[in-house]
Amino acid sequence: MSFAQEHIASLMGRMNLDALLFWSLENIRYLCGFTGSDGALILTDQKRIFLSDSRYEEQAKEEIRGASFKKYKKKIEGVAQCFKSLRVRRLGFEAAALTCESYQRLKERLPHVTWVSLTDPLTNLRARKEPEEIDKIRRAIQIASESFLDALPRLKPGAREKTVGDFLEMRMKRRGGESPGFPTIVASGPRGALPHGKATDKAVEKKELVVIDFGVRFQGYHSDETKTVILGKPDGQQKKIYDLVRRAQERAMKAIRPGVSVRRIDAAARDVISRGGYGKFFGHGTGHGIGLAVHEPPAISPRGSGVVEAGMVFSVEPGIYVPGWGGVRLEDLVLVTERGCEVLTYLSKDLKNNIV
Amino acid sequence: MSFAQEHIASLMGRMNLDALLFWSLENIRYLCGFTGSDGALILTDQKRIFLSDSRYEEQAKEEIRGASFKKYKKKIEGVAQCFKSLRVRRLGFEAAALTCESYQRLKERLPHVTWVSLTDPLTNLRARKEPEEIDKIRRAIQIASESFLDALPRLKPGAREKTVGDFLEMRMKRRGGESPGFPTIVASGPRGALPHGKATDKAVEKKELVVIDFGVRFQGYHSDETKTVILGKPDGQQKKIYDLVRRAQERAMKAIRPGVSVRRIDAAARDVISRGGYGKFFGHGTGHGIGLAVHEPPAISPRGSGVVEAGMVFSVEPGIYVPGWGGVRLEDLVLVTERGCEVLTYLSKDLKNNIV
Repeated sequence: MSFAQEHIASLMGRMNLDALLFWSLENIRYLCGFTGSDGALILTDQKRIFLSDSRYEEQAKEEIRGASFKKYKKKIEGVAQCFKSLRVRRLGFEAAALTCESYQRLKERLPHVTWVSLTDPLTNLRARKEPEEIDKIRRAIQIASESFLDALPRLKPGAREKTVGDFLEMRMKRRGGESPGFPTIVASGPRGALPHGKATDKAVEKKELVVIDFGVRFQGYHSDETKTVILGKPDGQQKKIYDLVRRAQERAMKAIRPGVSVRRIDAAARDVISRGGYGKFFGHGTGHGIGLAVHEPPAISPRGSGVVEAGMVFSVEPGIYVPGWGGVRLEDLVLVTERGCEVLTYLSKDLKNNIV
Repeated sequence: MSFAQEHIASLMGRMNLDALLFWSLENIRYLCGFTGSDGALILTDQKRIFLSDSRYEEQAKEEIRGASFKKYKKKIEGVAQCFKSLRVRRLGFEAAALTCESYQRLKERLPHVTWVSLTDPLTNLRARKEPEEIDKIRRAIQIASESFLDALPRLKPGAREKTVGDFLEMRMKRRGGESPGFPTIVASGPRGALPHGKATDKAVEKKELVVIDFGVRFQGYHSDETKTVILGKPDGQQKKIYDLVRRAQERAMKAIRPGVSVRRIDAAARDVISRGGYGKFFGHGTGHGIGLAVHEPPAISPRGSGVVEAGMVFSVEPGIYVPGWGGVRLEDLVLVTERGCEVLTYLSKDLKNNIV
């Protein structure tokens, strides 16, 4: 993690900080490898200290790399005490992770410390993935894709959405995933108009479009992919909307290369859908970064900022959602390369390969 | 929910607030029924407005009760705009849910608003469960218990922890649970010394103690229970430690009735273990409240505060964790009644019923 160390040393120098406090579990995992559900990480020029309670003492000692372990009984008191003993004066913290309450309680206990709010000190670092991170995402994708193919034969008229989703999740675990990355979406027929339509007891029916959005966590890293499958021969409107979404997705992918703004990538997809007459039925952004978090920078959206860089991994997932009728979403993950992008997910999004 | 409405009206009057902002998904679900993963709820004397983005528009309209829906494109801007149009002057917010960053960004957009930090405006309300909440917890317990019994035959020498845990989770879903309430713990042999030892690829072996901590979410509400099972005849130390934990648990349960301090309940369990000579191997608190969150007030701990009241539901889960040897934890959920408590979980914690 010398890359991360340099980044942090540079940040601390630039902001004139004695120490950094990490509260976000994903950033903590990124920096020291701890996978549990509670703790804090303190970095100074000289020291890296991970703090947690007795529940995680043994686990932390096994997992953490490049940091020493310190146990607390109460988190706020333990962290404050640690800063006192380190004589920290000027401290950077994650404003997007610390709650107002924890911040207030820490400040009360550390009246002589100057607190410097950092939106997310690791955003740029984490957005550009290192090779071993990309490997883990590829493994997650493989587990999820194979599990999807395991589950596909169960998607038949009469099958309940939840039965299909549960089976898919069970296979993901059996194939070595840590857990589903998020609640699996299986949204059939009119329910496809819900972009986040978690699987329910509804039975899928002949001729319905079924939006299936699934992902798995593997060694902390996530996959995320959406297939839209049709049960039988598509009618004219189904075909038209599916093709529109597919063309929007392809257009966005073609726009991706280092230096292109996230807004331009989003616009590439959005223009296709708008010109097709369905602009108002595509309410969300075109994509999101992914890694230790399912959603992380960059946001590929009309309201996003900045440009994409080589090494970034994000989703490209336009959709059209028509209330009362249903929806189509197609989602792949891409890795930005020096000259364009590589599509990491490999299940076909062509309509002809999605008729069951 | 007139109970909640009274509570909120009284809070607003007492603190002289024009409005309350809810950011915590659990509090939002408690107050208006929304089950999705992003949104905000604004309450004034006259209005109840739930805000979310287009992904949740249809779902929110189906789910929310007693509140109107307003769509935003960006959360901070949408929420700020809503407060402006309501002409809010003095606003209470959840300090334990809002991050420093969101707070800062909202404040910048609302320079004339006075922000009043509330630790958790619903803590007392949510800690005392209403009958329909208790029913949901009972249903969750039933699903989890039956699933545990489904999985128990798979717990044999040679079986992997993860295989047993995955099977248990799959059964919980099949029996109607929304999802596991938390990653299922299956910690066998020396791994039992990890209080949060998530299931791994380790095979369980003859004569090992296996700590299994499992729970499910049903209609938003959680169960949580821990069994410690032994594969074969217990040896002297296993028996001694198990009995000590069991006696600690029973002693704590006997101490529970309205008006008793959480510290006294914790001490009841802790004293048994300390007198038995294992005090330093019981590092965590004796229990935690449960409901829409897996961990919520009251904390039954040496550092907790307050007394328990009728209607509260919490866990009683002493444990002994000996590094290198293993661990025993026994966890039940109790409901505080007028005169004592009712144990809601029903799987036996007696050693003789936990030998397989």
